Amino acid sequence: MERHIRYAHEENALILLDQRALPGTEAWVPCRTTEDIIYALQTMVVRGAPAIGVTAAYGCALAVMESSEADWRAALEQRLERIAEARPTAVNLRWAVERMRSVWHSHAGVERNALAVLFLEEAVRLHGEDIGINKRMGAHGAAVIADNDTIMTHCNAGALATAGYGTALGVVRGAVDAGRRGISVIANETRPFLQGARLTAYELKEDGIPVTVACDNACGLLMRRGMVNKVVVGADRIAANGDAVNKIGTYSVALLAREHGVPFYVAAPLSTIDRNMPTGDATPIEERPSREVTHVGETQITPDGVPVLNFAFDATPAALIAGIITEEGILRPPYDLSIVAAFCRVKTTG
Amino acid sequence: MERHIRYAHEENALILLDQRALPGTEAWVPCRTTEDIIYALQTMVVRGAPAIGVTAAYGCALAVMESSEADWRAALEQRLERIAEARPTAVNLRWAVERMRSVWHSHAGVERNALAVLFLEEAVRLHGEDIGINKRMGAHGAAVIADNDTIMTHCNAGALATAGYGTALGVVRGAVDAGRRGISVIANETRPFLQGARLTAYELKEDGIPVTVACDNACGLLMRRGMVNKVVVGADRIAANGDAVNKIGTYSVALLAREHGVPFYVAAPLSTIDRNMPTGDATPIEERPSREVTHVGETQITPDGVPVLNFAFDATPAALIAGIITEEGILRPPYDLSIVAAFCRVKTTG
Repeated sequence: MERHIRYAHEENALILLDQRALPGTEAWVPCRTTEDIIYALQTMVVRGAPAIGVTAAYGCALAVMESSEADWRAALEQRLERIAEARPTAVNLRWAVERMRSVWHSHAGVERNALAVLFLEEAVRLHGEDIGINKRMGAHGAAVIADNDTIMTHCNAGALATAGYGTALGVVRGAVDAGRRGISVIANETRPFLQGARLTAYELKEDGIPVTVACDNACGLLMRRGMVNKVVVGADRIAANGDAVNKIGTYSVALLAREHGVPFYVAAPLSTIDRNMPTGDATPIEERPSREVTHVGETQITPDGVPVLNFAFDATPAALIAGIITEEGILRPPYDLSIVAAFCRVKTTG
Repeated sequence: MERHIRYAHEENALILLDQRALPGTEAWVPCRTTEDIIYALQTMVVRGAPAIGVTAAYGCALAVMESSEADWRAALEQRLERIAEARPTAVNLRWAVERMRSVWHSHAGVERNALAVLFLEEAVRLHGEDIGINKRMGAHGAAVIADNDTIMTHCNAGALATAGYGTALGVVRGAVDAGRRGISVIANETRPFLQGARLTAYELKEDGIPVTVACDNACGLLMRRGMVNKVVVGADRIAANGDAVNKIGTYSVALLAREHGVPFYVAAPLSTIDRNMPTGDATPIEERPSREVTHVGETQITPDGVPVLNFAFDATPAALIAGIITEEGILRPPYDLSIVAAFCRVKTTG
């Protein structure tokens, strides 16, 4: 699974496993240009905040190679900005582009070929770091998982959503790796894109971790019957106050978890925390094409001409979150303070 | 839409509009035997508690015609019981069969041909009553709907779920008929069977009432953004304490509604109230075939071999319900008392 984002040096292409076709088909999409990268991000060939960040980083390197214009610096700057704006909600996208930009700024007057090498090296570094971050997150998160826990998750915050190992599923894997026994997962199917039914189920089945799929509508009954011990989800952006923006429907799961006394955790790297965003409600929420709702495969499920709403994310208020599991440890409420402390710690020791 | 359950006297068949094929195809399924009726109920050719009751009533008449055995009374009794047990949650099914049984019991010694006529007459009466009940429910319910309300509903509690007009959608139609302006509906798509996306959207579009479809996961965001003024849903069984058992996911919607101060109403005839059932949690919850979750049309969405959970209903606690809209008026908390009062009123005046 760690090969689902792969840079092919021999042909200067980023090769992506097409997550739209899983689990039925393993198809690969080669990206050679800025346009290819933007297409892959927007159509969700690749999705998941950390995976989007890694893809964007390689995309910046491809953008340098593509910028053969006389005024290549201005052309490249435009391409970087277009990558950063490909999707509005996951902050890792802009974070990754900013990281590449700062490499550029720290090499004033660098020539284009040399910059291409610098960007590619930085993308490879970021790619490798992400797996390590997820493993540290998993090791920290294992502490909140007990033997025989059934863990509910929403969407896919697994290897496929990251460079590998996963955030929420990294915590599941971390618990298994730490020797917890009898761990199983309930994957909410996660309409409309069905990341849970398609991707989370696929990953965990491959790893031999027991997984059951349920419709998103089942959360309430399953919690009421005591069939869920913990909830662990990923995030696309965490605001400075600890509100977590994640896949649409996460907020419902969190509210049900509070009602039933089920601890609700968010697992995300520090790069997902946007300290400039005061609250979850202030975060831009992407609206995606109607067809994701009106059709499943080729089957049309709504009548012709009936409009649909397709918001891709929602915000879970910090008050519903028991802990934010990061590579630097588990942040606890009040999050405005614990987030500042985590960043200070990184600055001091990093 | 009121012709979707139609008895064809010339061929002694109940002709059902196949709700599995809507909105793409208008196909008709003729039922001539007890087996045909049970198949139609179990595979959801027809669904919705009141519509199930009407179908079962006609099924009892077909069962009389079919019972040509020497000991036809014992054979018929078995057939009636098999119809009553075709699905476990909607109490209208058993209620309708009991009503036919009591016709039989009040005609001791009746011959089979005469009983067939009596049953058929009673089924036609029950069928006709249901539309009237829904219209009275709609007129009562209109009182809680204001101009420009956006009403969220879950599943399909419309004409297709009843003999016609609908319970929850009867309240919407009642509000429009009472002159309310600017009424619109958000139909939750209602996984896995997609009754909202397919049936509610179809019905309301036909009636020219503005309807928008959203994934079940969107409820939280839509309420948080103030896009929902009221919730009105149907019910498959209401317990003596007012807990309402309805399509899976209703409980999540009710909890979100409370969190956001959105009034949550249940619209159902008194025949849906089961005074022998103490609470919603005590009500049997049907588990349906995995394929409803694993496939949409011919498209498989889960990996081979991954198990799924497919509970069809959940219970919404009475404490989350602002009112139960019946043909006898709107019941208010405490429901244990208002339910008893409603039944006493019917007994006195009926």
